[in-house]
Amino acid sequence: MSDKAGFDKKLPHIVVVGGGFGGLELLKKLRSAEVNITLVDKHNYHTFQPLLYQVASGGLGADSIGYPYRLIFRRQKNLRFRLATVDEIFPEKKEIATSTGSISYDYLVLGTGSTTNYFGNKEIEKFSMPMKTIPDALNLRSDILQEFEVAVNRQKISEKEQHMTFVIVGGGPTGVETAGALAEFKSNVLPHDYPELDPSLMKVYLVEAGPRLLAGFSERSGENSLKYLKNMGVEVLLDTVVEKYDGTEVSFKNGNKLASTTLIWSAGVKGVMIKGMPEESVSGNRYKVDSFNKVEGTEGIFAIGDAAGVYSEQLPKGYAMVAPVAMQQGQLLAKNLINLINNKPLKPFVYSDKGSMATVGRHKAVVDLSFWKFGGFFAWIVWMFLHLMLLVGFRNRVVVLINWVWNYFSYERALRLIVRKYDSPIKEQPIPSKD
Amino acid sequence: MSDKAGFDKKLPHIVVVGGGFGGLELLKKLRSAEVNITLVDKHNYHTFQPLLYQVASGGLGADSIGYPYRLIFRRQKNLRFRLATVDEIFPEKKEIATSTGSISYDYLVLGTGSTTNYFGNKEIEKFSMPMKTIPDALNLRSDILQEFEVAVNRQKISEKEQHMTFVIVGGGPTGVETAGALAEFKSNVLPHDYPELDPSLMKVYLVEAGPRLLAGFSERSGENSLKYLKNMGVEVLLDTVVEKYDGTEVSFKNGNKLASTTLIWSAGVKGVMIKGMPEESVSGNRYKVDSFNKVEGTEGIFAIGDAAGVYSEQLPKGYAMVAPVAMQQGQLLAKNLINLINNKPLKPFVYSDKGSMATVGRHKAVVDLSFWKFGGFFAWIVWMFLHLMLLVGFRNRVVVLINWVWNYFSYERALRLIVRKYDSPIKEQPIPSKD
Repeated sequence: MSDKAGFDKKLPHIVVVGGGFGGLELLKKLRSAEVNITLVDKHNYHTFQPLLYQVASGGLGADSIGYPYRLIFRRQKNLRFRLATVDEIFPEKKEIATSTGSISYDYLVLGTGSTTNYFGNKEIEKFSMPMKTIPDALNLRSDILQEFEVAVNRQKISEKEQHMTFVIVGGGPTGVETAGALAEFKSNVLPHDYPELDPSLMKVYLVEAGPRLLAGFSERSGENSLKYLKNMGVEVLLDTVVEKYDGTEVSFKNGNKLASTTLIWSAGVKGVMIKGMPEESVSGNRYKVDSFNKVEGTEGIFAIGDAAGVYSEQLPKGYAMVAPVAMQQGQLLAKNLINLINNKPLKPFVYSDKGSMATVGRHKAVVDLSFWKFGGFFAWIVWMFLHLMLLVGFRNRVVVLINWVWNYFSYERALRLIVRKYDSPIKEQPIPSKD
Repeated sequence: MSDKAGFDKKLPHIVVVGGGFGGLELLKKLRSAEVNITLVDKHNYHTFQPLLYQVASGGLGADSIGYPYRLIFRRQKNLRFRLATVDEIFPEKKEIATSTGSISYDYLVLGTGSTTNYFGNKEIEKFSMPMKTIPDALNLRSDILQEFEVAVNRQKISEKEQHMTFVIVGGGPTGVETAGALAEFKSNVLPHDYPELDPSLMKVYLVEAGPRLLAGFSERSGENSLKYLKNMGVEVLLDTVVEKYDGTEVSFKNGNKLASTTLIWSAGVKGVMIKGMPEESVSGNRYKVDSFNKVEGTEGIFAIGDAAGVYSEQLPKGYAMVAPVAMQQGQLLAKNLINLINNKPLKPFVYSDKGSMATVGRHKAVVDLSFWKFGGFFAWIVWMFLHLMLLVGFRNRVVVLINWVWNYFSYERALRLIVRKYDSPIKEQPIPSKD
């Protein structure tokens, strides 16, 4: 691969790895900058992760929350896109090695984001379902539906129950929202579509190691979400740690066991680190960055978002791994890169926390603003409006809105085609086809 | 699996294998019949095959043309659904063995449809892409998009061209429609999204072994579709037979060769036959049936649609493998099964050919009615209206209509996420991820 095919060779070359929330903001802000930009990503689309759980539960299509980079950047002439994974960084050569060739850079921005963290538990990694990417969500959707098809064929009640028991680990927004969506499936879809199955056999467990849900939110929002989930029939297990999972049974540290063929793991994430960076640049699975997001011990390398750790006494673990931090860092870094190129002083990053929100189901959400924490119906309206506005692309907003209106009035989750491989190594495969 | 869980044991049990166009009509007509029905299918959804090529080309989502059986039959109390493949039929025991257990029947209806026919060419089967199921279409969509991502990274023009050359084999409706859709991608999407690629390097070939396109249609429609495709830039090779394909180069019987990494095989289908049926019941890859669709040499076993061969002197190959034949056979068989149960005389099947139609792209289609053959803009309007009406489910009609209006005005094929494995054994894999 030539390095700057079609680029004006005299301009500085900024290589951005990852087009998540941080990368996207950075790239947009550099729209009219006199630079060459290469975006490298292992997917050809940006993922709107906050709505992943709705793809998993069949309320939205994958195309509604993914947006192809080439469509986003159609009119941005200073940018080219490369579909590739980055295998190694060579800071001294100012070069990266990708799955499709090497690319040299003047400035490198690592917006590699985070990946599911199994905390070293290989068995859980093998048998559980992650929920971090669109393919993950599509796999989960097909998997959930197949569990019911298997349950139909089981004679023993205990076996039916095992296939209809869904254990979600991690009481953060993803876990809370997924648990809510599954509870709605139980009450709205199951009784109509599986008349042969007793709906009361379906169990949704939400397991959290800590003493409360939504640890990053206010106490009040944590309590509200717990109350909403319990009302919807979700069994919430607090202060409970998963120790083992073999694909059929969950073992907890307190000795309890739970028969379930589906464990959804949303208990943690860790920054994605690439080979070749100096040892002192990484700490706590994140790149140590200064207040200008420059990676420690490197020249011309920056990190933003989940992959970047802005460590201080007040922030021993860095900022929370959430979209707003990444977006604000991306926006500022765009300005700072232009300043850097023009030999102007840089501005330090200060996070402006606008608040957090999570939804738990029909008419139920929690919203934390600095000056106001609230839950319930109005929070749900605010959540929907803001998420619609944050989606990339007018088409996606229209399609998501139509789907939500449809789902609301029909009580339906209509996207229920089993089109992904049922590839968990131990799970029974009801369809021996190659699809 | 118990045989008739939840069923009134005294009623006759009709087992239907396959919920395609024929099976669906049969099942709907049996809605209020006093029978027990089990539908067995390897997919959990009905596929509206005529629009598969639009899923492949990114104009429609899979959920728009697939409809879950459990949703279709929600209110049909005499029917249960089983997601399974049928491994063997035991006519003497009146039983079928499925991937999830055996099921006994009083009447068995084989609506197993057809599958891609490679005419014994294992190499073509291995390296080409079929277009018969929704997973096929989704695989093709991801594959096409990845070819362009690979082409971007190629240095040599000849290699770029190889990845941008799409060879479609088979000049029937699927081949014609797919070629048209790819030609539209070339003119409407490629120049905007891949500014680094010279659009003239993209080539779409439609290869047909016979002397004309759309052999089942009128001469006039065949000529019209040829004219439309040529105007759109498709290279149509008539009287041309593919002999070999190794994943990188197509070899024709006439000695010509064509470098291409994508061969779409829509050159033939054959009926799906299940093990265990008496030898005399099968001929020409179809079940030999009489005019009541009863399979020869069996008792209580019927076949409809592509899997059924109604052979006669006038019809040495049976009816064409098209949806209207299957639907009419399904409708009549429903009545005949009720007649049979009530000891009433059966009605013989007579096909009423209402005509055929195919679309070739924006504003272009051909329609053959018995009294009128026409092409062009009006044919295109008729094609769209009829296909919308034939889709199962109000939601699907609305979503497809919205998508078509969107695609029409935006010249866009927005569904372009690469979310399927790039699993052809020889093709370069640009993304080494597990997605």
